[in-house]
Amino acid sequence: MRPNDHPTTVGLVQTRYFTFAEDEPFRLESGASLSPVTLAYETYGTLNRDRSNAILILHALSGSAHAAGRHHPDDPKPGWWDDCIGPGKAFDTERFFVISSNVIGSCYGSTGPASIDPTTGKPYGLRFPVVTIGDMVNAQVRLLDHLGIDTLLCAAGGSMGGMQVLEWAAHHSHRLRAAIPIATTAHHSPMLIAFSEVGRQAIYADPNWNRGDYYDRAVKPDAGLAVARMVGHITYLSERSMQQKFGRRLQGRERYGYEFQTEFEVESYLKYNGSKFTRRFDANSYLYITKAMDYFDLAARHGTLAAAFEQAQHIKFLVISFTSDWLYPSYHSKELVAALTAAGCDVTYLDIESSWGHDAFLLEVDTMTRLLSSFLDRLADETH
Amino acid sequence: MRPNDHPTTVGLVQTRYFTFAEDEPFRLESGASLSPVTLAYETYGTLNRDRSNAILILHALSGSAHAAGRHHPDDPKPGWWDDCIGPGKAFDTERFFVISSNVIGSCYGSTGPASIDPTTGKPYGLRFPVVTIGDMVNAQVRLLDHLGIDTLLCAAGGSMGGMQVLEWAAHHSHRLRAAIPIATTAHHSPMLIAFSEVGRQAIYADPNWNRGDYYDRAVKPDAGLAVARMVGHITYLSERSMQQKFGRRLQGRERYGYEFQTEFEVESYLKYNGSKFTRRFDANSYLYITKAMDYFDLAARHGTLAAAFEQAQHIKFLVISFTSDWLYPSYHSKELVAALTAAGCDVTYLDIESSWGHDAFLLEVDTMTRLLSSFLDRLADETH
Repeated sequence: MRPNDHPTTVGLVQTRYFTFAEDEPFRLESGASLSPVTLAYETYGTLNRDRSNAILILHALSGSAHAAGRHHPDDPKPGWWDDCIGPGKAFDTERFFVISSNVIGSCYGSTGPASIDPTTGKPYGLRFPVVTIGDMVNAQVRLLDHLGIDTLLCAAGGSMGGMQVLEWAAHHSHRLRAAIPIATTAHHSPMLIAFSEVGRQAIYADPNWNRGDYYDRAVKPDAGLAVARMVGHITYLSERSMQQKFGRRLQGRERYGYEFQTEFEVESYLKYNGSKFTRRFDANSYLYITKAMDYFDLAARHGTLAAAFEQAQHIKFLVISFTSDWLYPSYHSKELVAALTAAGCDVTYLDIESSWGHDAFLLEVDTMTRLLSSFLDRLADETH
Repeated sequence: MRPNDHPTTVGLVQTRYFTFAEDEPFRLESGASLSPVTLAYETYGTLNRDRSNAILILHALSGSAHAAGRHHPDDPKPGWWDDCIGPGKAFDTERFFVISSNVIGSCYGSTGPASIDPTTGKPYGLRFPVVTIGDMVNAQVRLLDHLGIDTLLCAAGGSMGGMQVLEWAAHHSHRLRAAIPIATTAHHSPMLIAFSEVGRQAIYADPNWNRGDYYDRAVKPDAGLAVARMVGHITYLSERSMQQKFGRRLQGRERYGYEFQTEFEVESYLKYNGSKFTRRFDANSYLYITKAMDYFDLAARHGTLAAAFEQAQHIKFLVISFTSDWLYPSYHSKELVAALTAAGCDVTYLDIESSWGHDAFLLEVDTMTRLLSSFLDRLADETH
């Protein structure tokens, strides 16, 4: 145990649930609506008296609101960004009130395809409306209203979390002072759409998917979801990190078996992670969330990307990319930085040297901590 | 019609079949054996009197012996490398006798998992032994013996074809004068293994695969094979070529449909190609051939990669890679060139600037033609 006077964790936390749109339906960008809507979230740290120290953390495709601490003392792992959120960490909970919000469409407590459709009394399945990154953020705006927070000190997130950050900055600019989009893009590229679609096709191909109607069945489309996740895992790594992590090493054997078994360590890693994912994630949520990412295209809605940030000139941006991230390559961030600069925003950009591929935003903790801390220090100083 | 005095095609061709190991079984690297073994092949051009103008062409994962010309006058497409094989083309059939060989394990006429197992009278399915790139080449050696060709002027191929070229150079060096490995590697990287394995897992996940036993059934594991092929297609392109080819354009519609249909052009491309592939390829062959590629590791068998080419000092190598090929990145070719140089071989290396990704070896026809022609000219001159 670490001494009590110097904790490095937020400790035990719990997920909270905010439900809204019970009377007035929540309108989606598609024109459809949802009623009611629940958003799962967690908070760490304390909101200060003038409500000026709130930081909103936004998660990636498979994430949840559980970003830091543990739900139970014996949880084997803490929240997904525990390395960066806590006392003395990058998002220092001794100074900041950190809100971590889930997204609609998710299977982690927010309204999504597995939720009960009040009009039928059964899970929505594919009757759940397609949602967008804009819809996810509009729901988060309602959460902020509920929490009584007018202005965020900052919104931060990697990958799909970064898309939400950009959506916040473009369409709710008056509600934030700073934005930290990490390892992300302002428009999903055709390659990203292609990887999303292959994952979806793997789910569609699973007969147990049954056009999304499987919640009352004993068997779920685990095989399809596992393949989708395996494809994803490849894209989160880099060729170099795979070389470092696995090389061509065999798993528990010294020579080729000349059979169709898991033989290479990298195969074992993919299979293990694919299978593990099916125990925690819902196949329909995978479809809805990847679709939301594919639809994301800030430039298209505004003519140019710079025009998307016309109202964001007061926002300080810290844009971060990673040199070996081939899923969201650095040039996407560079395009974003150019657009932000053209729009007259204050931008700090760092392309961090890393061999970890897209996963770097979860792994390059030391570099990230230095960078985020000094950015947030500067921000907090200017605010006071 | 082009004038008869200047044809640019090899015209009508037919696939031939060479069967061997009917009495004495063909031993595989695994220790298993096959009997009999059939190898499909085609030839274009004429073998000269001293039998010194033979070039062996080796195909990639999903290829066949049908590399040039047409089987029927109304075939919509010629063989897979028709751009490079024919009168006046890179592999000039007015000068060279071009042999294009299929591989064992394939579904294009050579002995593979869909062939009849003589011991049971039924298709092998998973009872077919796992084969290696070495086994594929050993079978091709028997084909050369059968054709009465002692020494090849050259062996050439891209991707898995390039692996066969390297196997020829390393283990049958006395039978070739030159080698042209294109867009390939001397050892499958963990990322390549990972993509192979995801494709295999997609096939395993299809209940119609039935552990490889589906040849007498009405339904084949098409859904799984299509997903495997879609994953492959992504890896054959580059992010830039996808941007050029598809961008974020929608297919036959002007705005998002907010539903789970094919909407983006890139989705339509993948789905079309995935589905088309199931009409021409066998899922079990996909398993066997990807496994052979994953096992390929010349360095491991010899201690170092340079040691693999100790007997190949008389061979002239033309190594070609493409700058945007992220599946077989240029640095794999550079490692190969370093090893060949260390082994004392004569190496010409070109990293061709191209935005087409791995597919470049089929698309960069003009550059390839110039390069191959001048290399083969020099080779033919030195031979005479």
